Amino acid sequence: MKARVHVTLKHGVLDPQGKAIAHALGSLGFGGVEDVRQGKFLELELAETDAGKAREQVKAMCEKLLANTVIENYTIELV
Amino acid sequence: MKARVHVTLKHGVLDPQGKAIAHALGSLGFGGVEDVRQGKFLELELAETDAGKAREQVKAMCEKLLANTVIENYTIELV
Repeated sequence: MKARVHVTLKHGVLDPQGKAIAHALGSLGFGGVEDVRQGKFLELELAETDAGKAREQVKAMCEKLLANTVIENYTIELV
Repeated sequence: MKARVHVTLKHGVLDPQGKAIAHALGSLGFGGVEDVRQGKFLELELAETDAGKAREQVKAMCEKLLANTVIENYTIELV
């Protein structure tokens, strides 16, 4: 079973990397970029075949390692 | 208009960061993680309101800055 995890910064948390990208896009001549937020995207290949158990497992992984839940949100999608 | 961009490593390109995450998950007691691939996830806030033009613009941004098309794929989603 495959899980797709998005880890994004919470609203209100500064994103200097996103700001740098927005600035670089402006310098390259791309106008009209009002904001950029950068997050992480993870694809996990799991041995687990039960969707419920897999989601529980990935949730625990996010809480323990993949996301810093103080400043980041995560979403889990099973495919 | 908002664009969501996923930048992922092409098939066959080594992903040491993903390997490190898979290894760390194993060390934390999460068995059954067969593979992890890490990518980037970008949310862009655009002034453009026309979907066609916005997609063109974001495609150009990906080609020029956001993705290294030699080793990375990108997908664009407008929301």
